[in-house]
Amino acid sequence: MITVSTSLAKPSGYHHGDLREALVAAGLAILEEGGDPKALSLREAARRAGVSAMAPYRHFADKEALLAAVAAVGFGRLREALLAADGRGSGREALVGQGVAYVAFACANPALFRLMFGSAPCPRDGDLDAASRSSFAVLTERVAALVPPAEAADWALHCWATVHGLAALSIDGQFGGSGENPEAMARRVLSLSALPSEC
Amino acid sequence: MITVSTSLAKPSGYHHGDLREALVAAGLAILEEGGDPKALSLREAARRAGVSAMAPYRHFADKEALLAAVAAVGFGRLREALLAADGRGSGREALVGQGVAYVAFACANPALFRLMFGSAPCPRDGDLDAASRSSFAVLTERVAALVPPAEAADWALHCWATVHGLAALSIDGQFGGSGENPEAMARRVLSLSALPSEC
Repeated sequence: MITVSTSLAKPSGYHHGDLREALVAAGLAILEEGGDPKALSLREAARRAGVSAMAPYRHFADKEALLAAVAAVGFGRLREALLAADGRGSGREALVGQGVAYVAFACANPALFRLMFGSAPCPRDGDLDAASRSSFAVLTERVAALVPPAEAADWALHCWATVHGLAALSIDGQFGGSGENPEAMARRVLSLSALPSEC
Repeated sequence: MITVSTSLAKPSGYHHGDLREALVAAGLAILEEGGDPKALSLREAARRAGVSAMAPYRHFADKEALLAAVAAVGFGRLREALLAADGRGSGREALVGQGVAYVAFACANPALFRLMFGSAPCPRDGDLDAASRSSFAVLTERVAALVPPAEAADWALHCWATVHGLAALSIDGQFGGSGENPEAMARRVLSLSALPSEC
């Protein structure tokens, strides 16, 4: 069945790449409003972008493909946030800054964060994997500058796990009792320094 | 509307506490099969326990109250797993053992773990809070024996975040590429030692 959008927005006014971008933007907005990837449909993304319900299929095979594209944009934004935080310090301070930025990103975008890292209905395609790796690389490069080469990969996992745990526990309300700001708590806890003291 | 169970199991054969326990056991089983707290209903728990659909209301006001009871049982099991692991070592080794046990618990019971720590529809009641605190105490006591008193609370949060991150990333398939056993990976990463080296 083909349904036609009743939106008054220009249904044929998009260039190829623009429509894709508009659909991803609509997907991001729906995700943040609904709080659950299940709340996102290609049909609703099309409605918001002002195109017919069939138009998204020019770019996305199904809803999961759109979710993967949204997650990839999320990893791009996370990478930017980590890079910006890293640039505000050096050494361990830069690493702590990255961790605080990771927690802040999760708290500001909980549904997007859950989509990016959850086992949700989001297939790992090439673009998403590349975006994810590119984001993780900001952390691994900073860690590699701080620890012996042989331990760098494991320390990167260690640091990732710590900041991911702080982020997940924060957005799931597990620190709710303290009432403390999650970023301030993350800065304090991460400043204890998980890295070998000789670094 | 009152519906009567068609089960042949004895509908009136439970003592008061036994029925509650049977319903919680049914809830645990449903959770592990369905993988999602939304898959659990009081009606289905009643059916499995062989009682009428109204019988659960003697113990649980609603589905959320049953979920809270199931989560509390989960924290009791986690506490037992942490204690057992802690008892197999001393000092830092015991702490690493607890971390590995935490990850193993999550991997063996992913749906239960998500219910316990997620922002899912599970109200925090007194029993659940007590069970959660009691479980966390196993970690905090071990940490307190290893670090200066003034830093103990923050180090406990640090260690919790690290093992929670490892657990969450494991059950969400984020380490899938390596194919490594999550417990082995956790042991290696945690053995890097996040605690101050003088401890």
